[in-house]
Amino acid sequence: MSLSSAPAKVAIVMGSKSDWATMQSAAEVLTELGIAHHVEVVSAHRTPDKLFSFAENAQQQGFDIIIAGAGGAAHLPGMLAAKTLVPVLGVPVQSAALSGVDSLYSIVQMPKGIPVGTLAIGKAGAANAALLAAQILALHDSLIASRLTEWRVKQTDAVLQHPDPREDA
Amino acid sequence: MSLSSAPAKVAIVMGSKSDWATMQSAAEVLTELGIAHHVEVVSAHRTPDKLFSFAENAQQQGFDIIIAGAGGAAHLPGMLAAKTLVPVLGVPVQSAALSGVDSLYSIVQMPKGIPVGTLAIGKAGAANAALLAAQILALHDSLIASRLTEWRVKQTDAVLQHPDPREDA
Amino acid sequence: MSLSSAPAKVAIVMGSKSDWATMQSAAEVLTELGIAHHVEVVSAHRTPDKLFSFAENAQQQGFDIIIAGAGGAAHLPGMLAAKTLVPVLGVPVQSAALSGVDSLYSIVQMPKGIPVGTLAIGKAGAANAALLAAQILALHDSLIASRLTEWRVKQTDAVLQHPDPREDA
Amino acid sequence: MSLSSAPAKVAIVMGSKSDWATMQSAAEVLTELGIAHHVEVVSAHRTPDKLFSFAENAQQQGFDIIIAGAGGAAHLPGMLAAKTLVPVLGVPVQSAALSGVDSLYSIVQMPKGIPVGTLAIGKAGAANAALLAAQILALHDSLIASRLTEWRVKQTDAVLQHPDPREDA
Amino acid sequence: MSLSSAPAKVAIVMGSKSDWATMQSAAEVLTELGIAHHVEVVSAHRTPDKLFSFAENAQQQGFDIIIAGAGGAAHLPGMLAAKTLVPVLGVPVQSAALSGVDSLYSIVQMPKGIPVGTLAIGKAGAANAALLAAQILALHDSLIASRLTEWRVKQTDAVLQHPDPREDA
Amino acid sequence: MSLSSAPAKVAIVMGSKSDWATMQSAAEVLTELGIAHHVEVVSAHRTPDKLFSFAENAQQQGFDIIIAGAGGAAHLPGMLAAKTLVPVLGVPVQSAALSGVDSLYSIVQMPKGIPVGTLAIGKAGAANAALLAAQILALHDSLIASRLTEWRVKQTDAVLQHPDPREDA
Amino acid sequence: MSLSSAPAKVAIVMGSKSDWATMQSAAEVLTELGIAHHVEVVSAHRTPDKLFSFAENAQQQGFDIIIAGAGGAAHLPGMLAAKTLVPVLGVPVQSAALSGVDSLYSIVQMPKGIPVGTLAIGKAGAANAALLAAQILALHDSLIASRLTEWRVKQTDAVLQHPDPREDA
Amino acid sequence: MSLSSAPAKVAIVMGSKSDWATMQSAAEVLTELGIAHHVEVVSAHRTPDKLFSFAENAQQQGFDIIIAGAGGAAHLPGMLAAKTLVPVLGVPVQSAALSGVDSLYSIVQMPKGIPVGTLAIGKAGAANAALLAAQILALHDSLIASRLTEWRVKQTDAVLQHPDPREDA
Repeated sequence: MSLSSAPAKVAIVMGSKSDWATMQSAAEVLTELGIAHHVEVVSAHRTPDKLFSFAENAQQQGFDIIIAGAGGAAHLPGMLAAKTLVPVLGVPVQSAALSGVDSLYSIVQMPKGIPVGTLAIGKAGAANAALLAAQILALHDSLIASRLTEWRVKQTDAVLQHPDPREDA
Repeated sequence: MSLSSAPAKVAIVMGSKSDWATMQSAAEVLTELGIAHHVEVVSAHRTPDKLFSFAENAQQQGFDIIIAGAGGAAHLPGMLAAKTLVPVLGVPVQSAALSGVDSLYSIVQMPKGIPVGTLAIGKAGAANAALLAAQILALHDSLIASRLTEWRVKQTDAVLQHPDPREDA
Repeated sequence: MSLSSAPAKVAIVMGSKSDWATMQSAAEVLTELGIAHHVEVVSAHRTPDKLFSFAENAQQQGFDIIIAGAGGAAHLPGMLAAKTLVPVLGVPVQSAALSGVDSLYSIVQMPKGIPVGTLAIGKAGAANAALLAAQILALHDSLIASRLTEWRVKQTDAVLQHPDPREDA
Repeated sequence: MSLSSAPAKVAIVMGSKSDWATMQSAAEVLTELGIAHHVEVVSAHRTPDKLFSFAENAQQQGFDIIIAGAGGAAHLPGMLAAKTLVPVLGVPVQSAALSGVDSLYSIVQMPKGIPVGTLAIGKAGAANAALLAAQILALHDSLIASRLTEWRVKQTDAVLQHPDPREDA
Repeated sequence: MSLSSAPAKVAIVMGSKSDWATMQSAAEVLTELGIAHHVEVVSAHRTPDKLFSFAENAQQQGFDIIIAGAGGAAHLPGMLAAKTLVPVLGVPVQSAALSGVDSLYSIVQMPKGIPVGTLAIGKAGAANAALLAAQILALHDSLIASRLTEWRVKQTDAVLQHPDPREDA
Repeated sequence: MSLSSAPAKVAIVMGSKSDWATMQSAAEVLTELGIAHHVEVVSAHRTPDKLFSFAENAQQQGFDIIIAGAGGAAHLPGMLAAKTLVPVLGVPVQSAALSGVDSLYSIVQMPKGIPVGTLAIGKAGAANAALLAAQILALHDSLIASRLTEWRVKQTDAVLQHPDPREDA
Repeated sequence: MSLSSAPAKVAIVMGSKSDWATMQSAAEVLTELGIAHHVEVVSAHRTPDKLFSFAENAQQQGFDIIIAGAGGAAHLPGMLAAKTLVPVLGVPVQSAALSGVDSLYSIVQMPKGIPVGTLAIGKAGAANAALLAAQILALHDSLIASRLTEWRVKQTDAVLQHPDPREDA
Repeated sequence: MSLSSAPAKVAIVMGSKSDWATMQSAAEVLTELGIAHHVEVVSAHRTPDKLFSFAENAQQQGFDIIIAGAGGAAHLPGMLAAKTLVPVLGVPVQSAALSGVDSLYSIVQMPKGIPVGTLAIGKAGAANAALLAAQILALHDSLIASRLTEWRVKQTDAVLQHPDPREDA
């Protein structure tokens, strides 16, 4: 399920198909940055064995970073993190009743010993997980580093060039 | 680690040794009701493989109910529930910063498909997990049923016999 | 109001007719598992005497588990639990202003002595109450046990067979 | 358990003996205002039948107002209100884990049909329940009305006479 | 602005015209119970002097109870209560951003000395404020008492006569 | 980008163009009061250097007050305040998942040393930031003072003239 | 009660004597900056008439800014603001049960029309109210402006000179 | 201020000296793993220019990861992230009034474009920031990778070897 012929350095996993509406923001950013990535549904609760095998094979599959999105009692990021040393970035998906506060607490409040780098609730968090993954890869990949720099410059310019919020609004 | 020679019908597991201060309230109630139980530390994050083997063997070990206590990003009850059909009762342990709201949300907000019967935050919840376990066992164990009935009568009488809160206060 | 000729082992009660939109998820799961169940509106506040008589007769009616759903200051599950030793599972119904946080706290924060096994807010919680009820019944009913096993396998397979969230999305 | 020879117009009930630390603030204010009152422990969960008989007899016992304090999943005020037309004032007792937010939501978020007039969490709320009870009685009792007026004047004067917070601080 | 020729015993005031969508539930219940009432917009922040004169004249106007609804930083109920001994019942109006939690806290968390009997957030709270007002009036008005009794019986019967939530749903 | 030929005394800045839907309420009030103002998008995160230069030049530009609106992890008001002695008023913009509670906490909970005067979440807060700015300017501008007085009188009259919420509703 | 012979430009008022523990942080900062100030207890609920006369006379007393601290259902800042055009800065005092969230919401969530510039909960907020008051005064008082500049430089230097947190810790 | 002769790959910065009580948990873990690190106080609000220069020089200083801890309106992590492409990990420090919920929201809820990988509130979060930093370094440093593996094995063994929580408790 990887998106290109290059080996995927980043895996994007999520607890259910419905999380894709959120997590595709991560995929889009990675695509913009030309970073091959793998996308897969891995449910902590409905497919726990797959979760374990996924985590056990993550390093060998060549993943440098795992981005994991889940909602409610969101156990996917933390359990992946418990089973691999590949850095895990967690994205709290906005939930129906509690607006993602449950997702956020379930992901970020990990006990000492097993970290999950947690991003904002929802699409902004998913996009930022991809950017943070890119920043990590950029530590040893000057191409990604230069694309990231360019991405940021564009982002800054987009704001600078339209300082007046009343235009076209 | 079982408390008596009778085979333990109830397992009390918890994410860390420090949770025992809370979870012993469950053990005390089971002891009062004469229900053999097993007590063990099983950390979802620090010993994930043990969690899985514990859950896989739970039925065969003769456990009819698992009581699982954990705090913060509390994944233990939900991950046990994902790996066994033995009913899992979850006890949110009060956490340092968020007073157990994080524990509660992480345990109770399970997605459709994998239930955890959740009790109150802290010691009251631990004691009640034991009582609920006893009520479940009592469906097919008249001895436990009669002890439970007696336990409740005593509890009611203790309130009825001291209706004036100003006594000895 | 039972759904089949077999005696109902599970009662689904709720505080008002409008809770049915949530609680029917419990009924659907029980039906999928072939578990006869009884469905009834019992309002803690508008019909307190019926609540008491319902609880007093629950055991004699043959109910092994009561699933109780309510919203806001949700007293139904806890008051039923106070009046019977039949295990009570509580479902917090999502409320208008507070999204079910009030329902959740009113149900789960029971004091020591009277347990309510609480599930997630809303439909997922209702479905899971039914699954937990089935798991409890399965302790002494091998037919339900095998249906539950099958149900879970199907659920797992449904996720495993569609690992790519981008399909048909 | 009434405090004087005059028939008690106000009942102060509470879910457990430990609530007295909070609820005695209500009793103290009533005593200051010379209002006879009755004090009793009535547990919704541990003594549900007593709750019902208390409510059923409240009018006949001459109670014009019931002040009910409880903590956690606080069902006492609402269930009393469901069983009597005597006005019920609810006092959320501060709880261990959730600081009384659970108590507050369980008391105040009553559904349409059964009101509980809710006061602040803790001792201030208990004292204010007594004052509100006195205001209600004062509608038809000029002696209480004049005492209340005097009580308020004193309260105001106490603030007016010490306008500088730095004195003796 | 009173609704009938009988002198109004109950005043319904609210912070802004937009609160009427909520507060009319109070007026409807009072009308059902045949209780004359007065309805008026009194803004704590935009018309503070009117608030004071309203409160100062409340007793003389014959009001036995003031029902006050407000949203956000809801100061109306508490400031009325500070200026009169007529019992004040507060209704937290659901607010845009914080769903009425701000309204609830601003109304219920009054300091010792000045009580506001607070009802649920929104329409249910408004209706219940009217019912509680009626219960207070009924202490000395047997006609209202009998209407309230009848109202409750109808309410109970409506639930009892439709025990099956699946009808017409 | 100033709105008139008079030098702008008030700057309205915001973190993104989408915040204009909220912040235009500030501009409207300033316009009503005849106060020249400057409007600009300054993103703390996407244009941090512009933020710094904006703050460094604020005094010299003649701004007496900066109104800053932002949502989520809203760092704009606090960082501006850290870089200038011009008073900063902060407006929490309502956010998608957390309804602006995140914005509010990020703006109001500033540590000792760097103040941000914070207004309500959303449009009401934006309008009030403008009014507070006007009140500050009015300390040394009698024209603005008289316009503000008039504005308030109109506001009060609008409420006083329509005391019955049922009109046209 | 002013602290020096110079006419006080800033008034610090608070709802009760116990708020002084928080509000003295405001007085200390003003003293450090050489700004004469007035300190007084004004209770919205216990001395509402004094609140009104205080607000009505504020401008004539020469106050340019009012700093108002209160806890719980904190109505003092908003009611002062409703009665004067002198800018009001609000300080939420930390409350017993709800840690000041109630105070914060009661102060900051003012409706459109009456602004209160709100600072952080507790002592940091009180100190910052004083700093913001000083910044406002500094717009037309170059002495205060230079003291503020110096105060900030000292604050910055204190951090810069001790960059290593492990010293003396 | 680096701890060893090796060039520091990780910087630990914090908003104030008092944050060291929390952040030293990060330093301890890095020391255990033999990872040279730099420790410094950088206050977003009191030393904003230092914050900018620190971020601008971070890459050139050889930092591969910045761990930033702050409390309340915690702007340090997000503003650092806005000014560098070096990955920033944020640690919410527990705050006095809001227990770190304000810190958490201020750090984690970053808008799309500027990511901060956020860890748990308090010491556990600080320790985990160090572990996550180590995992990132380990992607290209086999020595750190093996130490991390060993660290985890020890952690797991510590739990496995003491499965009975009642020992020494």
